[in-house]
Amino acid sequence: MTIGFLGLGTMGAPMAINLIKAGFSLQVWNRSRGPVDTVAKAGAQACDTPADAARGADVLIAMLADDDTSRVVLNDGGALAALARGAIVVNMATVSLDFAREMQAKCDALGLRYVAAPVLGRVNVAEAGKLNILAAGAPDTLAQVQPLFDVLGQRTWRFGDVPEQANVVKLASNFMIASAIETMSEAAALTQGHGVPGADFLDMITTAVFAVPAYTGYGGAIAKQVFEPAGFKLSLGAKDVRLALLAGEAANVPMPFGTVLRDNHLDSLAHGEGHLDWAALSKVAARRAGQDDTTD
Amino acid sequence: MTIGFLGLGTMGAPMAINLIKAGFSLQVWNRSRGPVDTVAKAGAQACDTPADAARGADVLIAMLADDDTSRVVLNDGGALAALARGAIVVNMATVSLDFAREMQAKCDALGLRYVAAPVLGRVNVAEAGKLNILAAGAPDTLAQVQPLFDVLGQRTWRFGDVPEQANVVKLASNFMIASAIETMSEAAALTQGHGVPGADFLDMITTAVFAVPAYTGYGGAIAKQVFEPAGFKLSLGAKDVRLALLAGEAANVPMPFGTVLRDNHLDSLAHGEGHLDWAALSKVAARRAGQDDTTD
Amino acid sequence: MTIGFLGLGTMGAPMAINLIKAGFSLQVWNRSRGPVDTVAKAGAQACDTPADAARGADVLIAMLADDDTSRVVLNDGGALAALARGAIVVNMATVSLDFAREMQAKCDALGLRYVAAPVLGRVNVAEAGKLNILAAGAPDTLAQVQPLFDVLGQRTWRFGDVPEQANVVKLASNFMIASAIETMSEAAALTQGHGVPGADFLDMITTAVFAVPAYTGYGGAIAKQVFEPAGFKLSLGAKDVRLALLAGEAANVPMPFGTVLRDNHLDSLAHGEGHLDWAALSKVAARRAGQDDTTD
Amino acid sequence: MTIGFLGLGTMGAPMAINLIKAGFSLQVWNRSRGPVDTVAKAGAQACDTPADAARGADVLIAMLADDDTSRVVLNDGGALAALARGAIVVNMATVSLDFAREMQAKCDALGLRYVAAPVLGRVNVAEAGKLNILAAGAPDTLAQVQPLFDVLGQRTWRFGDVPEQANVVKLASNFMIASAIETMSEAAALTQGHGVPGADFLDMITTAVFAVPAYTGYGGAIAKQVFEPAGFKLSLGAKDVRLALLAGEAANVPMPFGTVLRDNHLDSLAHGEGHLDWAALSKVAARRAGQDDTTD
Repeated sequence: MTIGFLGLGTMGAPMAINLIKAGFSLQVWNRSRGPVDTVAKAGAQACDTPADAARGADVLIAMLADDDTSRVVLNDGGALAALARGAIVVNMATVSLDFAREMQAKCDALGLRYVAAPVLGRVNVAEAGKLNILAAGAPDTLAQVQPLFDVLGQRTWRFGDVPEQANVVKLASNFMIASAIETMSEAAALTQGHGVPGADFLDMITTAVFAVPAYTGYGGAIAKQVFEPAGFKLSLGAKDVRLALLAGEAANVPMPFGTVLRDNHLDSLAHGEGHLDWAALSKVAARRAGQDDTTD
Repeated sequence: MTIGFLGLGTMGAPMAINLIKAGFSLQVWNRSRGPVDTVAKAGAQACDTPADAARGADVLIAMLADDDTSRVVLNDGGALAALARGAIVVNMATVSLDFAREMQAKCDALGLRYVAAPVLGRVNVAEAGKLNILAAGAPDTLAQVQPLFDVLGQRTWRFGDVPEQANVVKLASNFMIASAIETMSEAAALTQGHGVPGADFLDMITTAVFAVPAYTGYGGAIAKQVFEPAGFKLSLGAKDVRLALLAGEAANVPMPFGTVLRDNHLDSLAHGEGHLDWAALSKVAARRAGQDDTTD
Repeated sequence: MTIGFLGLGTMGAPMAINLIKAGFSLQVWNRSRGPVDTVAKAGAQACDTPADAARGADVLIAMLADDDTSRVVLNDGGALAALARGAIVVNMATVSLDFAREMQAKCDALGLRYVAAPVLGRVNVAEAGKLNILAAGAPDTLAQVQPLFDVLGQRTWRFGDVPEQANVVKLASNFMIASAIETMSEAAALTQGHGVPGADFLDMITTAVFAVPAYTGYGGAIAKQVFEPAGFKLSLGAKDVRLALLAGEAANVPMPFGTVLRDNHLDSLAHGEGHLDWAALSKVAARRAGQDDTTD
Repeated sequence: MTIGFLGLGTMGAPMAINLIKAGFSLQVWNRSRGPVDTVAKAGAQACDTPADAARGADVLIAMLADDDTSRVVLNDGGALAALARGAIVVNMATVSLDFAREMQAKCDALGLRYVAAPVLGRVNVAEAGKLNILAAGAPDTLAQVQPLFDVLGQRTWRFGDVPEQANVVKLASNFMIASAIETMSEAAALTQGHGVPGADFLDMITTAVFAVPAYTGYGGAIAKQVFEPAGFKLSLGAKDVRLALLAGEAANVPMPFGTVLRDNHLDSLAHGEGHLDWAALSKVAARRAGQDDTTD
């Protein structure tokens, strides 16, 4: 099975390498050349264009930044057009539902099979091949790519026959992570307002009640007030919240936590904090409570 | 050391029994007689009035329902007045900051020492002596009752010299649990709106990302749509959210998640759902999205 | 008919003077002596204590600052106790529903008749005797004091037999005024974010669509960024929003605009802006959008 | 001066007729034929296609439903392409900022001049030629079409040199109207919750404080619970709120009232109420407070 792989960012590169290690034959492309060389050293065939990476592939995996980048690479870059009829496109990026539908329509028109398989997990999890894979699409197509998922992840979760269903699950998941950051931010501002350092509160609550990485990671960053380097940029979080709200809008689902998150991300962006780690969302709650000069 | 113990509810009773097992001498009182007899069988001295339980005690532990009950029992019931000067009052209930200040003032006037030590953990945790104890008050007073905390909990967290500081930490903690319920509710409504059963989403997210009891417990109840019997009543959750907001108000801390929670709890109460488990808060998100007739 | 009148602030003084001009006999008291002398010159009998003003009065009108002041003056100050059985107490202040019930209970116990009659209108409206009077209480009692209302206001609106019903109407009204300020604040921030000065937008919208004093007054202040001297202090607005939310809580009425207002008022207070005019609430929207350094 | 006029809906038709009455020569087109015939009887030249209406016109006025319709008619329908270089396009519809930019770019490419001039006012105001016209674009271009605006409106407000600036003003205005509806809805639910019929409260507040059509119109509909026929459909209001939020997003302007409005409109749409008058937004507040069975 030949695999085209587009997008060798911090997530894509280790995923590609894991597939190579598992014996798959990879044709890889990335916008910047550095990661291509790195992955080529691990055994992949380096390609100069998205179309080159796609040509002859049975499966094309895309792990690109967002809707726009995905569209540019897959469509405008000729990757889809270069695939043979019947080939499978596995989009593992976090994209909008509209984009998922757009891609599926293009694939339908080209005789390709499209599935969505966004993932949960950060870089270290990707490196360990322990991602959680959120998959949706035609069952038989998913069955064919399951061996790849087994290499990349610890578990594959299936969410329906329509690819965008996996995307809504991914957006709902990121919405929940944003909520975790916001609730820590408000709670820490609350205790701080009564003289209990937010850091002390967060240390306790992420140990005693919420001892999982989503809380300990972001909570630790808030406690230490360390927002650089960004593990996941606030501006990307803002994008995902926006996509979650759009998905809610499409199905008439009010999301009051989501809209609070929207406003607070905009507040962050308006204060030039989009480049910081997502945990910097906490600066909004502190600022609004007049605690922004306080450091503990 | 003689301990007066007021309030033998689902939490208080196992806590009292653990103290007895550890060799402490207990004088216990409860509004209804049943629990008193049970704990007396374990070795406590049964008392007819709060004052009887307090008289002669070195330490008076109160584990009562709320502000009003605590006031009625401790003050009006004569418990505080029955204590000898220098005795220590340990209030382990979830009460408002105003009430904490009120109690401290009364204790000051009577020559008593007041500390706050609300706890995190449900009944099974209390039974196992594995509570997390959130303590605040004069350090030397806390040091004197630490042996009791060591029996009741796996860890004691100190949050300052002013008792109400422990109370604000407890309210911030419960606020975060309410947030966890709400975020699951909205996320499940979102996926459900796109044909992915909320239960499927919640199963995944509480396994892959939020695998801690606060999420798995309430998330499981939402997934199964089982809200009775109530582990923790929604109406009590509504009270704690209200107290958290009051605490925020006192320190000028905006809490937009908190105010969403306020409104959604009121929505629940307006629909007669206060007696259900806190997880029933999810019915609001589903109802607003027109999904209340949907069961998956 | 002899009228006791308590509270000669910016509203109370012109109201008292209008009653004197209409031929009523007034016994007046105020915490500070200045206004008492002024009103005495207009023909009232100056009193040294609330009780003195109440003694012998057929009707006692109270126009005091808030719950606490009203309680101190009416109850602790002996005013209610000094009235003869059957006398009528007309509370025209903006107070909480809880306080209205408390006063009614005290009046019941003393054989007094209690009605609520808060007003809509600023100082110039009070001076002109053109207030809108929001009245609730026993119909026959209201009928007896209607001649007084006819002097003070252009119109009396009746809202029920229970005094607190007038108070909830007053709180709902002030909530709507706060909403008007907030919506102008957000709309102005929106246009400003696209290069249209908020002042230009507000000038248009308060002329073309919302040409009433609640909009033109606060909108003009926002447009000019002039928040001192305060016509109505932001901190008082914060109090009224709080009372409106409490009233909502008591009846299980979610108020999402109300909770946004709550948070934004806290944000203002946290930034030391409580002494400014209510229109300064607009600083929150501007600040959050990163526009606080912008002046047009 | 020859005017092409596209879109003869409830607003467009009376506007076109006023221009004819003022002596202008009109070439009109509408998707359905009925209105074309009506306006032709008043003196306009009926056209079969948008391009026909545009051909030879000095000024092309568009008063179409929304972004999509405007794009279909102006661009795909060939209207812009049919204009001579130097002709002026006056878009008077409520469209998104993105669409305004898109149209301006197309006009630039075709050598046309584009201005935006959305209006405030309902049908009766349009008939009377008393609209408020919100204009933005190149000053000399606006000066050339001012004689048309003088016919259509009582006043033209200029908001900048960039057409989209008029659109953001229109969206901000509609946002404020939505806020007026929501604040009445919540306030009425609040008084209703305490036994004061919402209708009684609304009658008072729209007389005593907010005596302008935006309040009296929607407030009257809420008071009477009459939501059909729709003067302005809730689904259109939902669209405008969405566009206002998008505009806010583009400039990093948090709009917490806007996001409450978003959620409540989605709640309405989820309950199948999009076809009702915008005043039906009030059903959300009533429903959430458990008052939906109450009619007063």
